[in-house]
Amino acid sequence: MRIIVDGFGGDNAPLEVLKGCVSAVDGLGVDITVVGDQDKINACAKENNIDLSKISLRHADGVMEVCYEPNKILKEYSGTSMAVGLKMLADGEGDAFLSAGSTGALLVGATFIVKRIKGIKRAALATVIPTANSAGALLLDCGANADCRPEMLAQFGVMGSAYMRSFMDLKAPKVALANIGAEPSKGRELELESYKLLQSAPIDFIGNIEGRDIPLGGADVVVADGFTGNLILKTIEGMGKFFGLGIKDIISGSLGTKLGALLLKQKIIDFKKKTDYSEHGGAPLLGTCAPVIKAHGSSDAKAFYNAIRQAKLCVENDLVGKITAGLEELKSSAEV
Amino acid sequence: MRIIVDGFGGDNAPLEVLKGCVSAVDGLGVDITVVGDQDKINACAKENNIDLSKISLRHADGVMEVCYEPNKILKEYSGTSMAVGLKMLADGEGDAFLSAGSTGALLVGATFIVKRIKGIKRAALATVIPTANSAGALLLDCGANADCRPEMLAQFGVMGSAYMRSFMDLKAPKVALANIGAEPSKGRELELESYKLLQSAPIDFIGNIEGRDIPLGGADVVVADGFTGNLILKTIEGMGKFFGLGIKDIISGSLGTKLGALLLKQKIIDFKKKTDYSEHGGAPLLGTCAPVIKAHGSSDAKAFYNAIRQAKLCVENDLVGKITAGLEELKSSAEV
Repeated sequence: MRIIVDGFGGDNAPLEVLKGCVSAVDGLGVDITVVGDQDKINACAKENNIDLSKISLRHADGVMEVCYEPNKILKEYSGTSMAVGLKMLADGEGDAFLSAGSTGALLVGATFIVKRIKGIKRAALATVIPTANSAGALLLDCGANADCRPEMLAQFGVMGSAYMRSFMDLKAPKVALANIGAEPSKGRELELESYKLLQSAPIDFIGNIEGRDIPLGGADVVVADGFTGNLILKTIEGMGKFFGLGIKDIISGSLGTKLGALLLKQKIIDFKKKTDYSEHGGAPLLGTCAPVIKAHGSSDAKAFYNAIRQAKLCVENDLVGKITAGLEELKSSAEV
Repeated sequence: MRIIVDGFGGDNAPLEVLKGCVSAVDGLGVDITVVGDQDKINACAKENNIDLSKISLRHADGVMEVCYEPNKILKEYSGTSMAVGLKMLADGEGDAFLSAGSTGALLVGATFIVKRIKGIKRAALATVIPTANSAGALLLDCGANADCRPEMLAQFGVMGSAYMRSFMDLKAPKVALANIGAEPSKGRELELESYKLLQSAPIDFIGNIEGRDIPLGGADVVVADGFTGNLILKTIEGMGKFFGLGIKDIISGSLGTKLGALLLKQKIIDFKKKTDYSEHGGAPLLGTCAPVIKAHGSSDAKAFYNAIRQAKLCVENDLVGKITAGLEELKSSAEV
């Protein structure tokens, strides 16, 4: 299995990318090709004593900066490390692609270079969010599609279920629709229609989920339009930051509170780990002909390692095959 | 000033309602009329040694249960404590009304019995959410209107600003639009149009706010359609619960961690207080001809006291007058 990695995506590229890749080759037993400016990669490796002998390199000249207009990845910036990596994936020179660069550009590039699975209306950006009573829940769409139609939400349900079977090894992930009440009559026209389609989809659809139950782990897959999903995701991030500041304040201060903090240290670390995004790798882009993973922009070596592990699981467990099969079933259920 | 209180709203009625009212008469210097079954109220007061001599009572036969169809408050259940209280407010027998009962019924009743301020398209349900770097932010609409038009969101901005000037004593509350990016070009058609209207509204509009910055206190007023607002609010609640469970787990266990918890006790209490909804009273319903407050269904005496304080501030600071004036300005800015 070969994972293609954008060497120049994210705030800590290329150093943390390279460190993550090197440990993944050994730890995960995958082949890796890092795409990007060869001179810069070699210089960085030399400077930091990183042994690249087990890594393949593919040269690409520029970087698809976050501030660039995403659509320009198709022509003006088709020589950047992200575009070249996606082209390699499309040409079968690898099994999955991973980048911590611009989300918008990755979405455009994945859709038009790697292309969507036949029948998929829109690729969706998904994220595993930490939950209180389960190992995490997949939220999608997280912002790729601000406006959605019911058929798109039904496909998100099928793709999310396939992903959680591949990545979390769940037999029948519980899929729910983000809504403002539990009853099927709640929500806007979009939710009313999507509810019906999800009900007949080849997934374990458990109905609507309210915001309150999302972080508590009420569902394994939470389906929403990209506008709603993005606001849910970012609100969760903001609350995490809010509580992080709160904990920091609690454990700082007098000698007494410092001692108290010391006694609770391990438990605080465990809880922080539970709420840590990077444990779950990056955000998978679902619906493309081969797995594409968006790593967090601030990813460090550990986060890159986990994102590579995630890409490996998607390939190993045939995520694309599962989505394709689910899509066929969805189509025939809609035709009945 | 006279506050009308629904004696039979919420899980802890009438006991906690009465306790809250009695302490508010003394602590806040307001007159209070409690509406509901007189026999039950008197029996409850007697049983719990509550002195009702400073409270006025108004008899009403039934209770508007949460499971009832909200619209039925207008005819079938027009004799319930909630309906009678709203009628009293409409008839000028009090200055504000407060209930911990059914949100849906209160919305319908407030809109059709108390009626909307002239020109207001829809009443909105608002909630003060806890924030990291400020005293809290007002989020509206929290679910009264799942589908919104841009003019409604502009009015929400004006009403929210008026509320925060009345309740928080802020000179010029910062108003923002919940969105999936900071740039004015972000979001759906609804956000693009609302952005323009909010920009010319007589408020301090600071632009879009992303989910991440909402709990951090990036704005004093966050405007959203009721679907989005409800999911943001409930996600915040769920995250609060998630972290509450986490803290509980951190401080339980071995003797060492218990000692640690003891040393941090006061700081943990302070932080919990900061994230406690009941400190801010209930959810104001904005846009009606007189202030209507929805107290949390699980309100205790302290929460009722705070909700009464909130009602008092709305009356004292002429919330309705402020909204009416803001609306006039909004109208003339749109006509320019």
